[in-house]
Amino acid sequence: MTNLPASRPSRAVIEVVTPVVDAGRFAAKAALGEPVAVIADVFGEGHDAVGAALRWRFAPQGGRPSLWNEIPMQFLVNDRWTAAFEPTELGRHEFQILAWSDHLETWRHGTERKHEADVDISVELIGGEALLLDILDRARDATSPIGDDVDAVQALLADVRSGDPALLADPRWDVLSFRYGRRTPIARSNVFPVDVDRERARFSAWYEFFPRSTVGDQTGHATLRQAIDRLDRIAAMGFDVVYLPPIHPIGVVNRKGRNNATTAEPDDTGSPWGIADHLAVHPELGTIDDVRAFVAACRDRGMELAIDVAFQCTPDHPWVTEHPEWFRQRADGTIQYAENPPKKYQDIYPIEFETDDWEALWQALADVFRYWIDEGVRIFRVDNPHTKAFPFWEWCMATVRSEHPDTIFLAEAFTRPRVMERLAKVGFNQSYTYFTWRQQAWELREYFTDLATRTVDFFRPNAWPNTPDILTEQLQYGGRPVFVARAILAATLSANWGIYGPAFELLEHRAVRPGSEEYLDSEKYQIRHWDLDDPDSLAPLITRLNEIRRAQPALHHLRTLRFHDVDSEQLLCFSKTDPNGVGDPILVVVNLDGREHHAGHVHVDPRAYGLGFGDDDEFDVIDLLGGGQYRWRGWRNFVELTPGRGQAHVFAIHRPGDAR
Amino acid sequence: MTNLPASRPSRAVIEVVTPVVDAGRFAAKAALGEPVAVIADVFGEGHDAVGAALRWRFAPQGGRPSLWNEIPMQFLVNDRWTAAFEPTELGRHEFQILAWSDHLETWRHGTERKHEADVDISVELIGGEALLLDILDRARDATSPIGDDVDAVQALLADVRSGDPALLADPRWDVLSFRYGRRTPIARSNVFPVDVDRERARFSAWYEFFPRSTVGDQTGHATLRQAIDRLDRIAAMGFDVVYLPPIHPIGVVNRKGRNNATTAEPDDTGSPWGIADHLAVHPELGTIDDVRAFVAACRDRGMELAIDVAFQCTPDHPWVTEHPEWFRQRADGTIQYAENPPKKYQDIYPIEFETDDWEALWQALADVFRYWIDEGVRIFRVDNPHTKAFPFWEWCMATVRSEHPDTIFLAEAFTRPRVMERLAKVGFNQSYTYFTWRQQAWELREYFTDLATRTVDFFRPNAWPNTPDILTEQLQYGGRPVFVARAILAATLSANWGIYGPAFELLEHRAVRPGSEEYLDSEKYQIRHWDLDDPDSLAPLITRLNEIRRAQPALHHLRTLRFHDVDSEQLLCFSKTDPNGVGDPILVVVNLDGREHHAGHVHVDPRAYGLGFGDDDEFDVIDLLGGGQYRWRGWRNFVELTPGRGQAHVFAIHRPGDAR
Repeated sequence: MTNLPASRPSRAVIEVVTPVVDAGRFAAKAALGEPVAVIADVFGEGHDAVGAALRWRFAPQGGRPSLWNEIPMQFLVNDRWTAAFEPTELGRHEFQILAWSDHLETWRHGTERKHEADVDISVELIGGEALLLDILDRARDATSPIGDDVDAVQALLADVRSGDPALLADPRWDVLSFRYGRRTPIARSNVFPVDVDRERARFSAWYEFFPRSTVGDQTGHATLRQAIDRLDRIAAMGFDVVYLPPIHPIGVVNRKGRNNATTAEPDDTGSPWGIADHLAVHPELGTIDDVRAFVAACRDRGMELAIDVAFQCTPDHPWVTEHPEWFRQRADGTIQYAENPPKKYQDIYPIEFETDDWEALWQALADVFRYWIDEGVRIFRVDNPHTKAFPFWEWCMATVRSEHPDTIFLAEAFTRPRVMERLAKVGFNQSYTYFTWRQQAWELREYFTDLATRTVDFFRPNAWPNTPDILTEQLQYGGRPVFVARAILAATLSANWGIYGPAFELLEHRAVRPGSEEYLDSEKYQIRHWDLDDPDSLAPLITRLNEIRRAQPALHHLRTLRFHDVDSEQLLCFSKTDPNGVGDPILVVVNLDGREHHAGHVHVDPRAYGLGFGDDDEFDVIDLLGGGQYRWRGWRNFVELTPGRGQAHVFAIHRPGDAR
Repeated sequence: MTNLPASRPSRAVIEVVTPVVDAGRFAAKAALGEPVAVIADVFGEGHDAVGAALRWRFAPQGGRPSLWNEIPMQFLVNDRWTAAFEPTELGRHEFQILAWSDHLETWRHGTERKHEADVDISVELIGGEALLLDILDRARDATSPIGDDVDAVQALLADVRSGDPALLADPRWDVLSFRYGRRTPIARSNVFPVDVDRERARFSAWYEFFPRSTVGDQTGHATLRQAIDRLDRIAAMGFDVVYLPPIHPIGVVNRKGRNNATTAEPDDTGSPWGIADHLAVHPELGTIDDVRAFVAACRDRGMELAIDVAFQCTPDHPWVTEHPEWFRQRADGTIQYAENPPKKYQDIYPIEFETDDWEALWQALADVFRYWIDEGVRIFRVDNPHTKAFPFWEWCMATVRSEHPDTIFLAEAFTRPRVMERLAKVGFNQSYTYFTWRQQAWELREYFTDLATRTVDFFRPNAWPNTPDILTEQLQYGGRPVFVARAILAATLSANWGIYGPAFELLEHRAVRPGSEEYLDSEKYQIRHWDLDDPDSLAPLITRLNEIRRAQPALHHLRTLRFHDVDSEQLLCFSKTDPNGVGDPILVVVNLDGREHHAGHVHVDPRAYGLGFGDDDEFDVIDLLGGGQYRWRGWRNFVELTPGRGQAHVFAIHRPGDAR
């Protein structure tokens, strides 16, 4: 036989708690300005009433937790309860759910039903008096009884004694029962972690450019000082993160040439990812003072610098001689260069995470982040994190954030789904996605539904139409309408988006060879000159998209994304709302086809937006992107979109006649 | 900052393990004769190979666990791995997943790719020699090296030294690497519990009847000895569990009359659920010797007795006077009778699970099971378990099963979904379902899809077309075709099914009043006489259904259930296979409409059944129920079903021309 429990267990059950990642092994992600909605199944057996509370606190890693805050949970439907808290601190928080049999409510509800059925409740009222006397004692004994709670209990007690059944409908029962009702034996969920980031981790627009390339009348190898001159334009387009590829000295040994040639010509500049020193600035870009000036110039314009951290070394990197044990030795004593057989990358040595000297290695890598944090950088785009050990990232990001909780890490991994998700779980605040390769309506819908539901508590997508590594076939051959559609999709499907700047603005679409996603004359291997004043530039569209994003709270979130059926395989329709109900619902319809006109009915239930619309009511949709306003009715409305004239609608949904 | 791990952590990750219930808080359910398929996401970072093992052992509750068995896991797709074990003991088992970086496989695979790309691998072969020497040491040191493993390693070593690249494709790598490869640092999943039941918990056919009712030339109050005479017929129909409503003395105080009248007439027999003593036999049914005879008579016919355990007491139950503290006292000192306001059940006192004397109460309740187990009963249909404390059930079933692991508990709860699921989690081997009220094709599909996926690891449905409490409106008004359809659905959708016997066989459909699901002249409140020789009886259909169920392994399982689209809202189509691949795939098409003919194409992908069919191949479907055989082709085939002539097909899928 099996031993009895040590004491009578609680009859209340707590199950299926969210947001919880891997049963609490990892923290769920949250951000300032966004409520953390906790949901759980809470119930007891039979007909007895249960009470439930949400407790939460700030619990910084390595620090002392604050006191618990406690709020009542509200019943939703079918044993599901919810409560939300809005954190005000950055860093690790914790929450827990408590549940108990609510004897006072069981009594009140049962007695009310009997009274409604004209059953004599005199014996019940005597039972209620005993319950209320107990509440009264507890209210009096409370270290800080709230307001006139004691008076309220005494008033109910007088009602019970006088046999006045009106007291059963008194609105004070809930709060008094929650505050002073007996909760023993109590059920407790596990304590679950939530990591709170600043808002920019959840909502951001990134602009990537190579600072050594030139614009306007610049020539040769541009400097960081010259790159500062490009910031006004980027800020005017509405971006808030300026991301630069590595700004470090580039290795000379086995340097790659233009278009990834194995052998460099004497004047080739090499790839910025051929890093010869993680703690130095490329001399032709400038000095550490220039980095500081760049950081300040971004800040002055309401933007932030993100730098690239690529943990790999060229053969002439100081670590190779100072710490050869941090690299993999081959059987012949040489150091193993990077390879993905049969491909070889002789200019790069990968780091050996299985080194016996792992503790020193991990600290040195963390020190790279610390070094640049000391220079004012708080956002890091991490190159290929999936080829480094997950436990390293988990420790490294936790330790950096325990010192600087405003640090943001973007994972540049394009690999298998489980690996990308694990990187997000171990702490990356944002992640690159498969968006670039999801081009049909059905696959965008499937992918973003997964992102907005299954992985939404830990994986924050950052959607890019292009990167220096990815020029999709669609962009190569689709023409301007495809660039337009991809920008609109990235900026509205995802709360975080970014572009590889000049190449996207200027519709750069030439691949190095057919079948390749590499750019011809890629900036990765050479300096380019860009004519940013090209009248065909997409800058006006991008500017408008970022304006709409900033103005519309609905676009600051992913969780509320919902797709809608359309009578056309080439139209994609989705909507978003702000979880706090601020601003308008936004409804987007995009023609994914760059060549043909497409039309169809979109199926949107107007009742879903909390605007009080009925099934067949009229409402207005106002196109924030293309202009125009339409009076719609019911849940089935007609849309048509023609490439060149309007690739998409970005509608705000309004009551009829409401001013914008 | 955050402390470094105490030692270098494993780079391997183990995630999303199944079967796991609530992160391991509860045991997954398994049964003898069914493999436990364990699936998990296992991966490392980058391109390194990982190895994974499944460990499992018998770990009886309160007993000493056996040694771990260990088998390699196989790669499925996208970082998903699997392995299965087939338990041979009843009771608690445990499993765990181990994962590690597989350096030998990383070396072999990388070297093979280089060799295929004509890259010189001489340095790699030297590295391979070192790895193999290590394997050799470990094979020699193994406490029990297997077969010629040492020779095999030496042969590979010779190949490496001679530089023969053919060794890279040697089939022995996998097993040698698994047995002797270094696994440090290793990743371990949690240890997860699995409870193994006997096969009847998973696959059973129940027949319920009231033993006091009469058949044939019996008159008055039938006895258990007379009820034994009914067993041959029940066994001939193919049932294997005979379930009797409570056989205890019925209380006299406040006894209910016929058709649930509040006041009984002097000759009224009362409800069997009005229990006056849980440890005694109703004198008019017989004695404990008669129960023993009934148990033996069932066993002789390959069946088993299931008795009803209803934890509630009539006012004249001995516990009421011996343990008044086990019941709820009202404020006026009386004992609280059962009620669901405004309904009152004055003949019944519910048990007070919040009693301070809970330890003695729990033991007394467990002793009720022990008492009947000592009399040979091993199956219990538990009445209204949802109105008793979950922690009690969890302890009670664990303690009873630790003594008698072959005990089976069926939860008779028809309440909210989360409550029904919790009862299954805390240990009920089988559960009643909402099947009775799921009548449309879409709702049957939705409900059974949920049962076969989300809850399949812990909730075993037992589907009943009727019970003494539930005569659905559909059965009241649908006529014989609806009875036929419901029997076929219950017997084939669910691996466990049952009927409330004579009433179902004889198409009993008269309700006590319009809008009620209670039978007119319900056997719950009076003795009935049944004419089992009625020529319209459904016995032949039921017999055939149970024959098909026994003969077809596919119908012994729920997990493989898949639904298929049909071009008719009134046709439901689904299929099942045996998880071990034994026997034929079974494809069922049911006309849910009792009045009208319905026809349409069913969409079944013939490639899904592992029979080697292509997309457009021909195959045979043989109707095991109605007879007939059809040659089908491809994934879209025509079906028509006419009430009265054939309500359903129960097809076995065959290769064309194969004998049955």
